[in-house]
Amino acid sequence: MGTEQFDAVDVIRTKRDGGVLAPEQIDWVVDAYTRGVVAEEQMSALAMAILLNGMTRAEVARWTAAMIATGERMSFAALSRPTADKHSTGGVGDKITLPLAPLVAAFDVAVPQLSGRGLGHTGGTLDKLESIPGWQAALSNDALMAQLDSVGAVICAAGSGLAPADRKLYALRDVTGTVEAIPLIASSIMSKKIAEGTGALVLDVKVGSGAFMKTVADARELARTMVDLGTDAGVRTVALLTDMSVPLGLTAGNALEVRESVEVLAGGGPADVVDLTVALAVEMLAAADRPVGADEVRAALSDGRAMDAWRAMIAAQGGDADATLPVAKETETVVAPSSGVLATLDAYGVGVAAWRLGAGRARKEDPVQAGAGVEWHARPGDAVVAGQPLLTLHTDTPERFDRALAALDGAWSVVPEGTPVETSPLILDRIA
Amino acid sequence: MGTEQFDAVDVIRTKRDGGVLAPEQIDWVVDAYTRGVVAEEQMSALAMAILLNGMTRAEVARWTAAMIATGERMSFAALSRPTADKHSTGGVGDKITLPLAPLVAAFDVAVPQLSGRGLGHTGGTLDKLESIPGWQAALSNDALMAQLDSVGAVICAAGSGLAPADRKLYALRDVTGTVEAIPLIASSIMSKKIAEGTGALVLDVKVGSGAFMKTVADARELARTMVDLGTDAGVRTVALLTDMSVPLGLTAGNALEVRESVEVLAGGGPADVVDLTVALAVEMLAAADRPVGADEVRAALSDGRAMDAWRAMIAAQGGDADATLPVAKETETVVAPSSGVLATLDAYGVGVAAWRLGAGRARKEDPVQAGAGVEWHARPGDAVVAGQPLLTLHTDTPERFDRALAALDGAWSVVPEGTPVETSPLILDRIA
Repeated sequence: MGTEQFDAVDVIRTKRDGGVLAPEQIDWVVDAYTRGVVAEEQMSALAMAILLNGMTRAEVARWTAAMIATGERMSFAALSRPTADKHSTGGVGDKITLPLAPLVAAFDVAVPQLSGRGLGHTGGTLDKLESIPGWQAALSNDALMAQLDSVGAVICAAGSGLAPADRKLYALRDVTGTVEAIPLIASSIMSKKIAEGTGALVLDVKVGSGAFMKTVADARELARTMVDLGTDAGVRTVALLTDMSVPLGLTAGNALEVRESVEVLAGGGPADVVDLTVALAVEMLAAADRPVGADEVRAALSDGRAMDAWRAMIAAQGGDADATLPVAKETETVVAPSSGVLATLDAYGVGVAAWRLGAGRARKEDPVQAGAGVEWHARPGDAVVAGQPLLTLHTDTPERFDRALAALDGAWSVVPEGTPVETSPLILDRIA
Repeated sequence: MGTEQFDAVDVIRTKRDGGVLAPEQIDWVVDAYTRGVVAEEQMSALAMAILLNGMTRAEVARWTAAMIATGERMSFAALSRPTADKHSTGGVGDKITLPLAPLVAAFDVAVPQLSGRGLGHTGGTLDKLESIPGWQAALSNDALMAQLDSVGAVICAAGSGLAPADRKLYALRDVTGTVEAIPLIASSIMSKKIAEGTGALVLDVKVGSGAFMKTVADARELARTMVDLGTDAGVRTVALLTDMSVPLGLTAGNALEVRESVEVLAGGGPADVVDLTVALAVEMLAAADRPVGADEVRAALSDGRAMDAWRAMIAAQGGDADATLPVAKETETVVAPSSGVLATLDAYGVGVAAWRLGAGRARKEDPVQAGAGVEWHARPGDAVVAGQPLLTLHTDTPERFDRALAALDGAWSVVPEGTPVETSPLILDRIA
């Protein structure tokens, strides 16, 4: 290693002892790790030191730039319209991308939504769309550009060329207890979004039991770090902090969530899903310099404009928007034990149950079941009657019911009518 | 990994978040790492979390026990005399083991000194003894026992069967910036000493520029941790904190240090080497329950008893104690630029110079030069005359002189006569 500019142990020691890494050290360590010169066990020690000792704003910015520099950069400058993208940090029942992308496209702002697959208890957008017969996640860069030009909205698999350092580093963090480092989360997300080349970006940072960030303080720090990173890189970036103590809408699961999304695009659907979709669309349009009021955005859900864009978007990737969605072979119902009010419905419990039923995967090579998941028939604050269905569990493999039911044990509660029920607002903060 | 009792990420997270590891978690993670089930990058993240968040006394004790359990344990119960061992945390010019082992053996206490090789700027005891023609470091367990019975002193290579987890973990810590974790240093040293089966142990914990521990506070914490570990394991353990801001004696280098050790065994030698050898011998004899006064110990250096034991010890391992020691092919001298008093002589600078001249190794497979090293002709506080030799550098490879001289640049200073010179006492503290 005599030709290397720096020594990995020196870099690790600097961060371990609470120091600030030099820009050149950051450039070198990220590149050398991607080349395999810095070993996995060295990056692991550095990641733990970053998790425990933090990074300055300048360090995170440089780290993100170094990750971007390991791969290709895309550009949408050739498009005739502005671009806006959205990224959610992941939640249970979070199908917002599905109605949101065509809704924004209906206002002549292009949405290049390059997504990943789900891992753990939060579902993946691509897994959801793949429950639509014929729909294909993989697009060439040329096909992506052509679809953005014609339809205005694309949801597809992120190519492996964007920030390859991130893929390697994320796999390492996953097995070394270093996923939770805010500088590394922020640079992981933002390196891919900046490399993708979007002009505007709206971040949906989830907070609560079903989210990665359990506290508003942590979520705010992550949001602030990412907004700074985007802004410094010339991307107009805004973040909303939104509640994930309760799952979104009334379904968690791949085909179940597509069905709910289509209801929203048809002018119906659960109020919280509609409200969050509209709020994020308003932010994306404003960040893309095409401001539209919330009422006008909401109208595009009722009058079919968003649905038209959805159908075009699905068709452009080979999907049949009119096809019957897959349904799980078996269901199991949980009923209300007494009459009263649903007081709690824990997002994490519902997410783990959906995952265990087959909607998610534990390893990235695992298959998912299109029809599996959880439906809930009430949200906290809703009245329920003894014996009515509270939850319906769906799976093709009924031996999974026991472990899914175990995850739901204690995840909900019914209280007598008149007992005060605490609910959180959907949007907790906005960071620009 | 479905049959494993614990999950590595859970163990890492516990320590990362400032928690206390359960005894069963410690047993598992050390054993599973040795088996290769816990990956290098996982242990690396855990080591960094231990370095930054520490360990309780109970955690370190359990970790040490778990390291011992990965290998064999020796026993000296069959010997007719008690056993006492000494361990130094490593310093420059630290040849104390050479006169000390035969000196203690002369008082009918057996010394089983299982040693390692030098790495970096501090020399290794085995490397020093290997400069004696014919001497062999490797002994079978049977030969070790026989020699302890007949001669009473053995200095040999530690077998690979003692705490094999430590060898693997040390190599990992070396490349991941996690060497400096006090719980891991203490358990590394003590796991081998406890597994070796000595009845008494005296620790020489070095403090200062040439030592691993730069401050008295760190050295005291390490000493306290190791004394607790030994005591809890039934080994009578005492630690001395000794100065390593100035190198010991007048030489650093393999054959150079053997020559100086033989001078001490012949009743001469530098006062600091004699004083420390006597102090450690008194501690070892007391810990072995055979107390002897310092004057009586010192007498054994003057009257040939220690020398007789040395000759028997060297001969038992094939060495010729009368043979001429190797001499380096080339020397270079640094002279005093002015008359006055030697004010400083930095142990680290001298250690790095000796290392660069060929006395030490950078990687464990590198060879060492028997004759290479540094001699200094004055110690801080001594008067010097302009033009007199201050330092003599020895090597077989004269192209090394430049880098060795660079290491010595600023490592010493001469001040006018009458200027107060600050010197540190040799023994700074005693922890029992």
